[in-house]
Amino acid sequence: MTDATALDLPGDDLFGPDNLPYGLYTTADAPDHPRIGVRYGDHVLDAGAAAAAFGSPHTALLQQPLLNPLMAAGRPVWQAVRAGLREWLTAARHRDTAARHLRPLEEVSLRLPFEVADYVDFYASEHHATNVGRIFRPDGEPLTPNWKHLPIGYHGRAGTVVASGTPVVRPVGQRKPPAEAAPLFGPSQRLDIEAEVGFVVGAPSAHGEPVGQGSLRDHVFGVCLLNDWSARDIQAWEYVPLGPFLGKSFATSVSAWVTPLEALDSARTAPPARDAPLLPYLDDGPDTGHEPGGLDIRITVRLNGATVAEPPFSAMYWTAAQQLAHMTVNGASLRTGDLFASGTVSGPEPDQYGCFLELTAGKGPYLADGDEVTLSAWAPGPQGSRIGLGEVTGRIDPARAI
Amino acid sequence: MTDATALDLPGDDLFGPDNLPYGLYTTADAPDHPRIGVRYGDHVLDAGAAAAAFGSPHTALLQQPLLNPLMAAGRPVWQAVRAGLREWLTAARHRDTAARHLRPLEEVSLRLPFEVADYVDFYASEHHATNVGRIFRPDGEPLTPNWKHLPIGYHGRAGTVVASGTPVVRPVGQRKPPAEAAPLFGPSQRLDIEAEVGFVVGAPSAHGEPVGQGSLRDHVFGVCLLNDWSARDIQAWEYVPLGPFLGKSFATSVSAWVTPLEALDSARTAPPARDAPLLPYLDDGPDTGHEPGGLDIRITVRLNGATVAEPPFSAMYWTAAQQLAHMTVNGASLRTGDLFASGTVSGPEPDQYGCFLELTAGKGPYLADGDEVTLSAWAPGPQGSRIGLGEVTGRIDPARAI
Repeated sequence: MTDATALDLPGDDLFGPDNLPYGLYTTADAPDHPRIGVRYGDHVLDAGAAAAAFGSPHTALLQQPLLNPLMAAGRPVWQAVRAGLREWLTAARHRDTAARHLRPLEEVSLRLPFEVADYVDFYASEHHATNVGRIFRPDGEPLTPNWKHLPIGYHGRAGTVVASGTPVVRPVGQRKPPAEAAPLFGPSQRLDIEAEVGFVVGAPSAHGEPVGQGSLRDHVFGVCLLNDWSARDIQAWEYVPLGPFLGKSFATSVSAWVTPLEALDSARTAPPARDAPLLPYLDDGPDTGHEPGGLDIRITVRLNGATVAEPPFSAMYWTAAQQLAHMTVNGASLRTGDLFASGTVSGPEPDQYGCFLELTAGKGPYLADGDEVTLSAWAPGPQGSRIGLGEVTGRIDPARAI
Repeated sequence: MTDATALDLPGDDLFGPDNLPYGLYTTADAPDHPRIGVRYGDHVLDAGAAAAAFGSPHTALLQQPLLNPLMAAGRPVWQAVRAGLREWLTAARHRDTAARHLRPLEEVSLRLPFEVADYVDFYASEHHATNVGRIFRPDGEPLTPNWKHLPIGYHGRAGTVVASGTPVVRPVGQRKPPAEAAPLFGPSQRLDIEAEVGFVVGAPSAHGEPVGQGSLRDHVFGVCLLNDWSARDIQAWEYVPLGPFLGKSFATSVSAWVTPLEALDSARTAPPARDAPLLPYLDDGPDTGHEPGGLDIRITVRLNGATVAEPPFSAMYWTAAQQLAHMTVNGASLRTGDLFASGTVSGPEPDQYGCFLELTAGKGPYLADGDEVTLSAWAPGPQGSRIGLGEVTGRIDPARAI
């Protein structure tokens, strides 16, 4: 039993009562029994056990071995569960009971918290798209003609989305330096990161029914951090005409904690001014009645412990609500577990770029074996509090022998 | 109980003892109880019930409500189950028992037979890629420089893979005719098909471990037909630089029957001569010891009942074994239920093109509301028999009101 003083958090704790992110963990005595946990300070609440102790009507959902059933239950249930968790963790009369179901973070192993259905990656930072366009297509306009009219996105590999902490093996593949007549084969020489924010779909939608911007809160369960590892040399050779494939599909890491969308209410902010008129389904201007679609999430990128960039998510041109509307405007359905990511978060300043391609102007150096990259982030919460988005970390392991 | 004469099939039946494709069906009296079925002539064998009657050690796998557990069980189990099915359906002493578990096809409803994990679509026909390149990029080389060095592919939306017979609602989206200054919004005016063959992964692979060409039989459970519905106007506007997205993600139809890969042994054929040297992991030349990677599958495309094309799968430049090797060479893992499709199957002749974009040289007409497209196919079996790949059909429903 954990001492109830574990419930007494400093007001600026990143994982206080306004956050309450969900994760999945195991303990050394039950390594095959994943449990839903809620982070509180430096502890994890065993959500299923606590729900049973408090007689929650949602106990069964919280005793599942992954988040998907809770995610599928929909917004009224998310709200009720969240209200319950907050009460259990903060009301004086519940202290002893809640403390009984807390474990120190260092005693648990965190898992991929949900089963990924479809994974979509967008390209929503104008700064990133401009910088990359200049590097990859030096002879053309940096932004393609469609860029300001729709949030460009593509499907990625759901099966290789891994939890924070999973080592990333340097991928092997084809690359073709301009001076070579034929492609070379071997470990990627330009292994990069992409610092992104991921949106996790809870409630599904019907096939054929678009989901409008105003329905974001009904479908998106929460937010995570995401590192879209990218082999730039493999990508550059393969991506025309059908887009990135093996340059991305070897691994995508997500943070172990999914922060409820509601926890980011105080981080809502207006996105950058739109300088091309938008079609109605994407329009989020002041006359549309949509709430501000931007989110003031402040990301830090660390390489081997040293901060290398601080990308501001508030600078993203396209919002999650627009991405949701676009992704479904053709009638494509949403499934519980769909994950859509923002694309690399880059701000206007050189120390705000979210990948080494930009940070080094395409010249490198890129990641070396043994390098460890960690993304962390926080956003403003109510009354001056802060909402932590946890972290996503990964170390580069050497390529397999070929 | 079906008469045992249902087991007496003509020698050229497309669904005889050398085929035995798997599907999933329900009956009117138990619409919520999907069962694994094996097609035999115009009947369906209730595989789970038959397995129980014959005391099969694989009864539990065959009584599941979808194919994925059987698919995951691996090749030795697939072989044993297939041998059992063949014996039950052909041995004189089993006639009465087998007949008891047969139902006429017209009495059952067929379902999507497996849960799709990741869906990858390739671009493996040189004829198709050349024709499309000429239409989409008239000022450039029709084939991109990478085309002969690697099988180009991209991830599609797994959540909108639907069973044959599911109506396809005309998608709505952005398109930008060249004469317009800004994109237009509305129903696609260029709704097309892509006649493809799909490969269904059964046995998974470990993350980080490439799967070589020689392991195709250990991982691929079976083959289906696939129609990759494509909105050419949406696709043309969105696909640079990250590839197709909404132009494809509204629906992908697959046949209800999955033919075991082994049933296509007699259809094995050499692929077209390779006119660029291949890296070792993709090389399938005569000195490599790999079995012939091509498959002599003959597809028929019908529009409202009339044959419009007969694409030969044997003309495909890249084989399924090469696609498998490429897809995993970077360490990406396979999951049970992964579906990878060939890309449009087009032969060299104008009546062998697998989409209307090519059949009409980019000029249309494309699909009208109410049009029904049906793909069917067969391949040579042993001793002059034929292996049917079933069919995939879909009718275009009008776009939703906007």
